Amino acid sequence: MTLRPALLALALALPLGAACATSPAQKALTMQDVLDASTPADWRALDPQNTLYLELDSGRVVIELAPMFAPQHVDNIRTLARAGYFDGLSINRSQDNFVVQWGDADGEDPAKARTMGKAKPKLPAEFIRTADGLDFTRIPDADGWAPEVGFVQGFPAARDPGAAIAWLAHCYATVGAGRAAAADSSTGNQLYVVTGQSPRQLDRNITTVGRVVLGMERLSVLPRGTGPLGFYEQAAQRVAIRSIRLAADVPEAERTPLEVFRTDRPAFADLVESRRNRRDDWYVHPAGHIDLCNVPLPVREVPAK
Amino acid sequence: MTLRPALLALALALPLGAACATSPAQKALTMQDVLDASTPADWRALDPQNTLYLELDSGRVVIELAPMFAPQHVDNIRTLARAGYFDGLSINRSQDNFVVQWGDADGEDPAKARTMGKAKPKLPAEFIRTADGLDFTRIPDADGWAPEVGFVQGFPAARDPGAAIAWLAHCYATVGAGRAAAADSSTGNQLYVVTGQSPRQLDRNITTVGRVVLGMERLSVLPRGTGPLGFYEQAAQRVAIRSIRLAADVPEAERTPLEVFRTDRPAFADLVESRRNRRDDWYVHPAGHIDLCNVPLPVREVPAK
Repeated sequence: MTLRPALLALALALPLGAACATSPAQKALTMQDVLDASTPADWRALDPQNTLYLELDSGRVVIELAPMFAPQHVDNIRTLARAGYFDGLSINRSQDNFVVQWGDADGEDPAKARTMGKAKPKLPAEFIRTADGLDFTRIPDADGWAPEVGFVQGFPAARDPGAAIAWLAHCYATVGAGRAAAADSSTGNQLYVVTGQSPRQLDRNITTVGRVVLGMERLSVLPRGTGPLGFYEQAAQRVAIRSIRLAADVPEAERTPLEVFRTDRPAFADLVESRRNRRDDWYVHPAGHIDLCNVPLPVREVPAK
Repeated sequence: MTLRPALLALALALPLGAACATSPAQKALTMQDVLDASTPADWRALDPQNTLYLELDSGRVVIELAPMFAPQHVDNIRTLARAGYFDGLSINRSQDNFVVQWGDADGEDPAKARTMGKAKPKLPAEFIRTADGLDFTRIPDADGWAPEVGFVQGFPAARDPGAAIAWLAHCYATVGAGRAAAADSSTGNQLYVVTGQSPRQLDRNITTVGRVVLGMERLSVLPRGTGPLGFYEQAAQRVAIRSIRLAADVPEAERTPLEVFRTDRPAFADLVESRRNRRDDWYVHPAGHIDLCNVPLPVREVPAK
């Protein structure tokens, strides 16, 4: 088996440098060390039933859905994608340091809005879920937004043990379902992705449905809209969506075979520690801390067998 | 006097909505309420001696320098700008969810590097400074990166009272001086700006010199470089810098007259509170918390007299 550990969607902040030992007995690992030492069991292939391909003129954006957090929204999104609902719609909003949003630009005009077909026109808000039955891997550090933060099957998440609830957190690349003033006004037919500083104030206020695992740079560079909230003011400024498809509905040869680093294994704890305390030639002051949304989530092409 | 409270560089996350009272006696303020109620004393004009204009084909980016944190680097940057050092150089790096960086693309080739003229070729690292004599306004919340966080004259900053030190924090729009492996290898001739999730792990590891107050969207949308660390691989991909000038050296009629919201007044405490707990029609769960890098720093054109 030939490993191809190319990191596709990973921002490497540090110049390459040799790891330095913190004590004679213990060698501190860099993230690269952790990835180099990873085994196939440390990686998980994306499930085609939980993977969306957003096709733009600039290329493909791969989104992993999080049915464990928003089962009804994810079901609806699958239904909409299968019916070709999004094909030919557009990205309508790009607000600097906040979000990019897409859907039916005429969605609020009943005379022009695209039909949602078999998808449900009304869903309950899925802002939170019960913490029961959730395999939650905490990181060592806390933040002020939630009693506990960590990861659930690769998704940044938060948990309140007192209330026995959990939710998907708003980090860079998190995808959510746009809504109006009513909490239960989202259906999944209008989606946004975080492109700026983690807007954690949105946590528990809106339904989050997944995250972009590849192709963020196709969304994050979109010209900022000059209208209120970063909406494009002219129809011509909108960015065309060729299609959104469930990977399971795309012929296997046309899929993007990806693996993501598992967040429930010891190797992930090593990765988090390598970023809590940078131990390469460049850093002089290891932080001894990391925020949830600063933890990198490595992605790679599926290694050739 | 006609007030023109146009918010130029502010990401408004919330739809407009009426403020709702938290108790019969107390009306909770939205950020818009705070700004509407602000007086001229709550705003501060940028000092032309501390303001840089980075001129791109797409327009002007306005940077406020922070001499209280990096006096020697700021001096050097002023000297470089006055000599036209940056004119005709380029933006050479755009790494998704991290930084955009500019300077002399040939800077590491002694045969090609542009001369720095009267600027100093060597400076001490200015990662931190003494906390003494610094007017530091704490925000109510803490984070895991520093014992105390808050603002110094409009700049997001952190402080360690035990060690009696303070530093400018890495938030979206923070500008720093690129360096090589040696801590004292920066001179200010190579600058970067944060375009992604606050990389606070850089705090105390590199010299920060200011922040972008207007025009971030001209930098944040730049195509991501495909080379290591987001460097552009082809010279043709680099983004031309027309010039960098100190505002004081630009004829007054050509300046961008801006005011920033003061961070040392009661109105700023109200603004922070309005964002710690969103009280409009949209939010159902006020967070009761804010991170340093989520606090908006309003900017407006100088009101006509």
